[in-house]
Amino acid sequence: MLTAEIIAIGSELLTPDRTDTNSLWLTEKLNGIGVEVKLKTVVGDDDARLEEAIRDALKRSRIVITTGGLGPTEDDITRKIAARALSRRLAYNEKVLETIREKFMRMNRQMPEINARQAMVIEGAEVLDNPNGTAPGMYLEHETRAVVLLPGPPREMRPMFENFVLPKLMTKAGDLRVARRIMRVAGLGESAVDSVIAPVYTQYDNPQTTILFNRSEIEIHLTAQGKTETEAELLLDGLAGQIEERLGDAIFAFRGETMEQVVGLRLAVGGFTLAVAESCTGGLVAERMTDVPGASSYFLEGVVAYSNDAKVRSLGVPAEFIAEYGAVSAQVAEAMAEGIKHRAEADFGVSVTGIAGPGGGSAEKPVGLVYIALADDAHTEHRKLMLPGDRQLIRWRASQAALDLLRRRLI
Amino acid sequence: MLTAEIIAIGSELLTPDRTDTNSLWLTEKLNGIGVEVKLKTVVGDDDARLEEAIRDALKRSRIVITTGGLGPTEDDITRKIAARALSRRLAYNEKVLETIREKFMRMNRQMPEINARQAMVIEGAEVLDNPNGTAPGMYLEHETRAVVLLPGPPREMRPMFENFVLPKLMTKAGDLRVARRIMRVAGLGESAVDSVIAPVYTQYDNPQTTILFNRSEIEIHLTAQGKTETEAELLLDGLAGQIEERLGDAIFAFRGETMEQVVGLRLAVGGFTLAVAESCTGGLVAERMTDVPGASSYFLEGVVAYSNDAKVRSLGVPAEFIAEYGAVSAQVAEAMAEGIKHRAEADFGVSVTGIAGPGGGSAEKPVGLVYIALADDAHTEHRKLMLPGDRQLIRWRASQAALDLLRRRLI
Repeated sequence: MLTAEIIAIGSELLTPDRTDTNSLWLTEKLNGIGVEVKLKTVVGDDDARLEEAIRDALKRSRIVITTGGLGPTEDDITRKIAARALSRRLAYNEKVLETIREKFMRMNRQMPEINARQAMVIEGAEVLDNPNGTAPGMYLEHETRAVVLLPGPPREMRPMFENFVLPKLMTKAGDLRVARRIMRVAGLGESAVDSVIAPVYTQYDNPQTTILFNRSEIEIHLTAQGKTETEAELLLDGLAGQIEERLGDAIFAFRGETMEQVVGLRLAVGGFTLAVAESCTGGLVAERMTDVPGASSYFLEGVVAYSNDAKVRSLGVPAEFIAEYGAVSAQVAEAMAEGIKHRAEADFGVSVTGIAGPGGGSAEKPVGLVYIALADDAHTEHRKLMLPGDRQLIRWRASQAALDLLRRRLI
Repeated sequence: MLTAEIIAIGSELLTPDRTDTNSLWLTEKLNGIGVEVKLKTVVGDDDARLEEAIRDALKRSRIVITTGGLGPTEDDITRKIAARALSRRLAYNEKVLETIREKFMRMNRQMPEINARQAMVIEGAEVLDNPNGTAPGMYLEHETRAVVLLPGPPREMRPMFENFVLPKLMTKAGDLRVARRIMRVAGLGESAVDSVIAPVYTQYDNPQTTILFNRSEIEIHLTAQGKTETEAELLLDGLAGQIEERLGDAIFAFRGETMEQVVGLRLAVGGFTLAVAESCTGGLVAERMTDVPGASSYFLEGVVAYSNDAKVRSLGVPAEFIAEYGAVSAQVAEAMAEGIKHRAEADFGVSVTGIAGPGGGSAEKPVGLVYIALADDAHTEHRKLMLPGDRQLIRWRASQAALDLLRRRLI
């Protein structure tokens, strides 16, 4: 198996607040083509240490990938130090300079002089275009090694790696192909999922199974190896089918889709429309639903009725419901769902009202108490939830439960 | 300043699903006593690579800390390889063996034979007791270096480091204290910020300055060392003041606050209320504003008017504006801001309408075209933006610009 090393560059990655996460994504992509990551280094904007890190990596591994340090400032030393470690010249490339200038022109700005530094290219390197930023990447072969310099921001690094680097590395990698699949589960805890499916997955070494807890979702990661991609995929199909038999509707995604993608697809396919009314989630449900491209075909309107006034005025919640049952109640949740459905003339109305904390809780209605409701033409239903976690987590879990309620109705 | 390196050991840390987070916690503790982390390595259960990693670290850094690989199995190679890298003997320690045996007895279990491996101690090392597990740690001084072997599980690693290792390192670190500060900038690009403040910050080695690009925010990280915390903070004050002189209102946070925290605080202090009307951001502005605890005191209502119908019905945007200028236009943005302000009876109405893509763009109105508007009792203003990036990034940048427009009005 081919071996790779990843070097993450930037002093900020050596602080307590930041860590390198690019390498996780890169590892997944590399594993997918049968390349194993054997070592990862995080190094600051430090000439000597970076040079040593690159030199050491070149001694040990067939593929050396750096991320970061390609920006325009003094701190961005990757170009200079990589050239030094490879004993190659670094020179201005007029064509690259022109491309960077054009990028600034398209934003109606003049290129600051310091950005010219990003047009320095290592002798013999292929320049990798960066549609999402000004820093181009580089790919070069050095003796028996492949050296790849990628920008640090994930949005720039990822498409560059997928479009330009992965195809090159695939020709180097051997015959083993690795396929991965992520299934996502809603409404069950980690240990519940594990106890249901462990009797199945523990029988297999290939695929390998990992269960991960990610906010309020349980993810089941399957990784299979085969001589071909098809063989690896067939192994995944076999195990995934058995897992599905056991978990049923609790699985909402079979290919790593998000809840909002799954719900959006079901709405689009059925030709249904949706409107949402939110209190404690503050727009998160609407934000998630509209994060999916094409959401305008089914998402009509959202109201964030944070004040009681807004609940009455904009959603038609009877003021006496709020007075009698409180804003966080089954009655108000159902009235919100019906109100937004009616107002937007949508097929479905979804609502959330609750106490996300840290303040606002009481003995009777503690932080974490959330009501969600769903209305369609035929009827309205609600769920009462007691969600653990901090404010952000409660908000996220409430949004997830509300979308899951709609998903199950749409099945 | 004393320098440290951290080596995280374990093949699971080289998979796509797991990353080393112990080093973040350790970095914070080390920085607090004036020790700088200069390099981090993640290495698998691989004899040769681990030995090289430890040898290299010893060449470069005064303090070398490893985490992980102290378990009882074959895979747990840290003891053996550290001894080899240090050219020291590894021998059974009867007293340690007895302690481990006792731990098992207290759990009414017999010690499995493989756990005896955890009683192997490197010649000259001090054994660090592990009240939360069976693997003891080790501390040893090697030539001018301090070498620390810690277990991987955080609940074992952390108390061991705080109780036994930190006091030892403090006597080495001398008296230096470190203080950090994060400033955030809106509305300027990374190179623009750098060219404005480089003449200032490049004059100082202490504080050190790093400029980071994080979505649409520029972060300026300052790190200062002093004999006392007060001295370090004073150094930060001095440089931060000069940076503020040059960047002025473009700095929205001086202590790492988020935009929504800053805007929320100004609204709360002024006793103002806010309502927002969103199209392309789909609830993101409302979601960000209500993410701050206590937002209910100033945030009244949000409307996600995704359909044209909703813009007319819920925000009172004149239908002829949409027909004549299009939904993405200055006229509609201003009408949305005024409409939500009026509807919610708020002091400020903020609106966003634009094309987040990937579809929906045209030659005249391309993806990335966004109008934001702000209305108060006195007047209404708008901004036209051309935002680069993908759908998510355009949405986030549009929300940031809208909040920044409000922030500047509130100054």
